[in-house]
Amino acid sequence: MVEEITDVVIIGAGPAGLQAAVHAVRKKASVLVLGRLENSSIYSAHVENYLCVDGVTDGAELLRIALAQATRFGAEVWPEDVLHLGQEGELFTVNVESGRQVMARTLILATGTSRKKLKVPGEKELLGRGVSYCVDCDANFYRNAKVAVVGNESAAVDGALTLTKYAAEVHLVCKDMAVGKELGEKLSASSVVVHKGVWAKEILGEKAVSGLLLDSGETLAVDGVFVELGAKGAMELATSIGVLLDTDTFSFIETNKKQETNITGIYAAGDIAGPPWQMAKAVGEGCVAGWEAANHANRIKRMSESA
Amino acid sequence: MVEEITDVVIIGAGPAGLQAAVHAVRKKASVLVLGRLENSSIYSAHVENYLCVDGVTDGAELLRIALAQATRFGAEVWPEDVLHLGQEGELFTVNVESGRQVMARTLILATGTSRKKLKVPGEKELLGRGVSYCVDCDANFYRNAKVAVVGNESAAVDGALTLTKYAAEVHLVCKDMAVGKELGEKLSASSVVVHKGVWAKEILGEKAVSGLLLDSGETLAVDGVFVELGAKGAMELATSIGVLLDTDTFSFIETNKKQETNITGIYAAGDIAGPPWQMAKAVGEGCVAGWEAANHANRIKRMSESA
Ligand SMILES: Cc1cc2nc3c(=O)[nH]c(=O)nc-3n(C[C@H](O)[C@H](O)[C@H](O)COP(=O)(O)OP(=O)(O)OC[C@H]3O[C@@H](n4cnc5c(N)ncnc54)[C@H](O)[C@@H]3O)c2cc1C
Ligand SMILES: Cc1cc2nc3c(=O)[nH]c(=O)nc-3n(C[C@H](O)[C@H](O)[C@H](O)COP(=O)(O)OP(=O)(O)OC[C@H]3O[C@@H](n4cnc5c(N)ncnc54)[C@H](O)[C@@H]3O)c2cc1C
Repeated sequence: MVEEITDVVIIGAGPAGLQAAVHAVRKKASVLVLGRLENSSIYSAHVENYLCVDGVTDGAELLRIALAQATRFGAEVWPEDVLHLGQEGELFTVNVESGRQVMARTLILATGTSRKKLKVPGEKELLGRGVSYCVDCDANFYRNAKVAVVGNESAAVDGALTLTKYAAEVHLVCKDMAVGKELGEKLSASSVVVHKGVWAKEILGEKAVSGLLLDSGETLAVDGVFVELGAKGAMELATSIGVLLDTDTFSFIETNKKQETNITGIYAAGDIAGPPWQMAKAVGEGCVAGWEAANHANRIKRMSESA
Repeated sequence: MVEEITDVVIIGAGPAGLQAAVHAVRKKASVLVLGRLENSSIYSAHVENYLCVDGVTDGAELLRIALAQATRFGAEVWPEDVLHLGQEGELFTVNVESGRQVMARTLILATGTSRKKLKVPGEKELLGRGVSYCVDCDANFYRNAKVAVVGNESAAVDGALTLTKYAAEVHLVCKDMAVGKELGEKLSASSVVVHKGVWAKEILGEKAVSGLLLDSGETLAVDGVFVELGAKGAMELATSIGVLLDTDTFSFIETNKKQETNITGIYAAGDIAGPPWQMAKAVGEGCVAGWEAANHANRIKRMSESA
């Protein structure tokens, strides 16, 4: 069986993956994007801080525009998940949901981070209407409001402290606090109302969040609930073929300024390549990764032609 | 005299500077942007490859939208040039055209690169209508066309080779070729028509480029002229206060992934921080620089408050 080889296979159809596709195609590489728009972090977000886009602020609409751009430039996009990555000689193998296998000269990992969910009633229903997974993205919408942060680790404590600069009242709900001394002291010195030993049971509200029911029976009257359980990396794919994570936090893929990982031919871009978790940064890294991967694929082809 | 201190002063009002402003303001820093939209590289460009912007492709219009965003978020913007940078203790001093001096906790250098001009008749008049300074940006617009590249160094030779993948006919005009052996051999093996020992005298055309007059008297009938004299860095400002350039080419400012330069408190983003010279990359780096500079300024303020 003769298999076709794709120059650049991009895993992830969010801002990083789609911008990578646009730039790789422009360098005359064949490009396949794998992933679903609906699973991008930006899909149900409200975006105001991405430069030159003032007006359209609906994440889903932005992604549809981006998809149209990438396909018009010449990228192929399959809305399906990747199940397995492998290596065969100098090529990478990519197995997708539908059972197909793709052979790639280079890979770009742009799978984002999937935020850990609380899994309580109201969370899914009120997402974007008072429920948020990103203090840095959404704090600004809660000026002078009452908010609660749920979480035990540094992301939650840090988030609560940030929110004190915006909100009128900040509650922190944590079962077992697990943060360093310095952060704990900052928390004590702050105006954050800490609820220790309790956890969220239900997020209340009809059209928007109106409160947070705790497992102690108490209800906090809040307009916003921030779920900050830390970014759970969707990195299993990457690490399975030997891509290394950052050595400080082991929570994202380590890259250099060319978005190269430790494995030649594999690039990473966007949220999976570390903070800040912002669309503008994802797009910038996608541009560089697409550019570099296409150059690398073209080099490999030239070398094998002249050999 | 009591002077006001600005948290983040951004030099440059292109994509990198304006995105930096948006992200710094969001972190509650006071932000001043210095520079003119009209001097941004993107101002007279036609942009198709910046993600999520499909429709508006006029660079000047994109910059006006970006400026409106930055000022609406709360950044101040002065359309004037910086003449001098200095350091006073832990603060930076910035002297601008109008004679004012600004004190800054942090600086973001986002001045772009000013492409070297040929300085021949027709060049300015036909910019964006057949005259280009960026093969990587514009090659796509010259499918099956006839084009000429002017330049002696690797940027010109590399550009001509790239153009052979798009254009029907590629001329290279160079007075004294100065490239390595490998690139020279690639050029010999290619379809590029090389005109050695001559130089461009005038770019011809009424509404669009129709030809290139050489100083030998010969006229090349072409639809496009690429001026590839290498990016002349507008770095005098930066290097005057000790900011280091990249050690390979000495043509851009060296930064790490946080866009930090070698001087604490000074960041760089966009074209001035190195290739690829693309708007998406400038915006991504601007986002990171704005984010990091604001965090740094906030840290300094907290430290001096608690001291
Ligand atoms: C509620 C919310 C609000 C936000 N607001 C803002 C904002 O206002 N401004 C801003 O700049 N940023 C905001 N962000 C952050 C922004 O959404 C992210 O930084 C951005 O989406 C990152 O882009 P990405 O391409 O790296 O990842 P994502 O956009 O998350 O895309 C990941 C892609 O990978 C795919 N994928 C994952 N696993 C697989 C697999 N195994 N196989 C195939 N595909 C896979 C997914 O389907 C998806 O297409 C917000 C985030 C959230 C959650
Ligand atoms: C003809 C052309 C076509 C292009 N087409 C595309 C394209 O299709 N897609 C794409 O992605 N990219 C394209 N580019 C590249 C793109 O324009 C740049 O990558 C982008 O503008 C870089 O942004 P920047 O903010 O780093 O610098 P710039 O946009 O160049 O902005 C620099 C800013 O710094 C200011 N400045 C400089 N010196 C000083 C000083 N001393 N004091 C104060 N301010 C100062 C300037 O006034 C300006 O505001 C093109 C470039 C050109 C020239």
